[in-house]
Amino acid sequence: MKPLSPTDQLFLWLEKRQQPMHVGGLQLFSFPEDAPDDYVAQLADQLRQYTEVTSPFDRRLDTRLSQPVWVHDDHLDLEHHFRFEALPTPGRIRELLTFVSAEHSHLMDRERPLWEFHLIEGLGHRQFAVYIKIHHSLVDGISAMRMIQRMLSTDPSQRNMPPIWDLRGQVTRDNDGDGLSIWRSMVHLLGESGKQLGTVPTVARELLRTINEARKDPAYDSIFRAPRSILNQKITGSRRFAAQSYSMKRIKAVCKAFGATVNDVVTAMCATALRTYLMNQDALPEKPLIAMVPVSLRKDESSEGNQVGVILANLHTDEGDAGERLRKIHQGIQEAKDRYAKMSSDEIINYTALTLAPAAFNFLTGMAPGWQTFNVVISNVPGPKETSYWNGAKLEGMYPVSIAMDRLALNMTLTSYNDQIEFGLIGCRRTLPSLQRMLDYLEDGLAELEQAAAL
Amino acid sequence: MKPLSPTDQLFLWLEKRQQPMHVGGLQLFSFPEDAPDDYVAQLADQLRQYTEVTSPFDRRLDTRLSQPVWVHDDHLDLEHHFRFEALPTPGRIRELLTFVSAEHSHLMDRERPLWEFHLIEGLGHRQFAVYIKIHHSLVDGISAMRMIQRMLSTDPSQRNMPPIWDLRGQVTRDNDGDGLSIWRSMVHLLGESGKQLGTVPTVARELLRTINEARKDPAYDSIFRAPRSILNQKITGSRRFAAQSYSMKRIKAVCKAFGATVNDVVTAMCATALRTYLMNQDALPEKPLIAMVPVSLRKDESSEGNQVGVILANLHTDEGDAGERLRKIHQGIQEAKDRYAKMSSDEIINYTALTLAPAAFNFLTGMAPGWQTFNVVISNVPGPKETSYWNGAKLEGMYPVSIAMDRLALNMTLTSYNDQIEFGLIGCRRTLPSLQRMLDYLEDGLAELEQAAAL
Repeated sequence: MKPLSPTDQLFLWLEKRQQPMHVGGLQLFSFPEDAPDDYVAQLADQLRQYTEVTSPFDRRLDTRLSQPVWVHDDHLDLEHHFRFEALPTPGRIRELLTFVSAEHSHLMDRERPLWEFHLIEGLGHRQFAVYIKIHHSLVDGISAMRMIQRMLSTDPSQRNMPPIWDLRGQVTRDNDGDGLSIWRSMVHLLGESGKQLGTVPTVARELLRTINEARKDPAYDSIFRAPRSILNQKITGSRRFAAQSYSMKRIKAVCKAFGATVNDVVTAMCATALRTYLMNQDALPEKPLIAMVPVSLRKDESSEGNQVGVILANLHTDEGDAGERLRKIHQGIQEAKDRYAKMSSDEIINYTALTLAPAAFNFLTGMAPGWQTFNVVISNVPGPKETSYWNGAKLEGMYPVSIAMDRLALNMTLTSYNDQIEFGLIGCRRTLPSLQRMLDYLEDGLAELEQAAAL
Repeated sequence: MKPLSPTDQLFLWLEKRQQPMHVGGLQLFSFPEDAPDDYVAQLADQLRQYTEVTSPFDRRLDTRLSQPVWVHDDHLDLEHHFRFEALPTPGRIRELLTFVSAEHSHLMDRERPLWEFHLIEGLGHRQFAVYIKIHHSLVDGISAMRMIQRMLSTDPSQRNMPPIWDLRGQVTRDNDGDGLSIWRSMVHLLGESGKQLGTVPTVARELLRTINEARKDPAYDSIFRAPRSILNQKITGSRRFAAQSYSMKRIKAVCKAFGATVNDVVTAMCATALRTYLMNQDALPEKPLIAMVPVSLRKDESSEGNQVGVILANLHTDEGDAGERLRKIHQGIQEAKDRYAKMSSDEIINYTALTLAPAAFNFLTGMAPGWQTFNVVISNVPGPKETSYWNGAKLEGMYPVSIAMDRLALNMTLTSYNDQIEFGLIGCRRTLPSLQRMLDYLEDGLAELEQAAAL
């Protein structure tokens, strides 16, 4: 028995029918060279043999003295968690994304351990896919990505590699910062770290007090400047997932030409895609969109932790010129980093928490919709640097599937793998129609930058 | 805009994560003789052309003056409702049932019209399936079955037959009794027919008053005699669906030998299956199980309405001899029918409502678990009498998928089609492990009766 941390309790609080709080990952694999045609069905049979379910995958929710706790599930039914499924004809990436969109829309059953592993056959070109879905109260985004990486190997000849639910002794929970540090910041703000959270009204009242103090402080005058947009409506329970890989080589060439970082360039690609998408919907706000972008603040090469600060990046979606837009984004992010460079660790945590307080208040209460501190989340999660394999099957791509929320109808999460940048966009498909077109707009955004750099 | 009837409001009230309130139907079809191998994919393309969505499939929930109403959905997204999907290798009925089990576990999004139509390819033997899921607040079981029948034809050469969401002008809501008349009875009991229901506490208080009056009346002394059993626990959100066809010819031969009705024999088959299942779990109560069995009470052949009474049928699961068990079940059901024969329509409605009041009270409040008036629902819904086709594809079988509830973890619904009786069992897969074995036990139950009749 293990009490839930305050951060993990938050994910349960925030969850509702229209707002499931699970994260996911989609991995695309090629068959090993010598594999038979029914390779995926054979793999499914092998995976069903891994009946030992290790922590945290054996945990289910329970209540002790009215507090939520994790307990070992004595009646775990692997058939519920491991699912072998197929895509319909013609089995293109389009059908795969439709499948993930539907699955990611479904709430999980709180009576059971909150994860699912979907093995998916029926893709063309001797490929198959794995879609993993885990409740955010069970793992954070970075830990999930590390688990998936531990499942993989750089050695194509390695076999008998277990699935993530049977990685005996190999999985530890990472409690350092991650791309969704907004949650930990909220808890920090409440000064309750390590204890149980109170009730929603208590927490909301506390946040409100903090916000009102922050508003008097000129250091925070910038946090209420995001415009209203269609990205910031109430959402429904239906999701659209869109994912694609983009060449790291192309992105790095743009970086070099503009003296920008990879993070600057992918943020600029997102800015262009959002600008085009909103213009086509006749819904581009006059004022520029603001993105919440978690950035790494490590000052040295020590592997101790992964200090993360949150930048409210101006996306300059009012700027018509792509090159100019990148320059301005780069400058804004650089200034924010310079500001962080002068702060101590504690100051950074406080600053981040205060920056996010208005959003946190809105998540919890749905009140004060006028306080739009940012319009969209653009998050970059580190992925494997080398070509990876799972039981001889080559990993062709891996795409994060994150969380859409009320008033944050779109989440753009990306990861790096080998020589690719992998984008995963998740959004409410009702408030954001034809979200999948953003994939083309991201490509257009990159092409425009290449043109601007005369590459 | 159309206010929800009190009955339909009940289904929304009763719905929770662990207890979705949608009903479904699974239809199994053969390819038309001349169909190409990609027949199902072509069919999917044709179905996507039916973009006109007719009532009630165009309705979504809204609230006006704090009352729930149906409104026309101006932004209906057919891709969300019509889904083309596939079964994994080896594509047996087993994979189909696993698929339906998972889909039937998922809550629907209340922001959208509450229905889904799944076209499923990947079955062997040139077969495919359709799984339709509709919220019970949108249609009742009988109406759903009639809609599906209107989609079909007895003419194998007929083509261009629309799917159920585009049956222009052909669908009317049936408001006469159905297999789940428990709901209408509850509303009747509250004397609020045609008006808005109050709040759950008000309704529960009213039910409690009624129950306490009924307990003083010797006519109702039988309604608290059901034993406690594992069928009557709190449920989780995960479902197991099991379905199979049994030969009507065999069942009718048993009827003739025992002088029993088809309904008696299928009830006896269920009794045997339950007895075997519970014995294997070491969980057969000493006292016999009681089933809630809706029966038709039509006295003449007039097609006016479909008067339904509810019988609390003693399943005599304490009786070891199969033939004797059928005789006792037949006698019990006959006595109940005779009792109804002496009653007026109003008396029948009152009697039914009072019989169901304790269960209704428990559904609403989760209190008074000691009042177990019945252990299981066994419901028989009329189906098509002749071989039916949909765009030339022969209907091989159709199986109802009903609702499991807290303290009623299993629902056994059956329907007749052509020369078959089609059983659909839906249950909580956590509280009732290996529920699919009941299909074999139903077959055993029929074989035992044949043996007892020396057939």
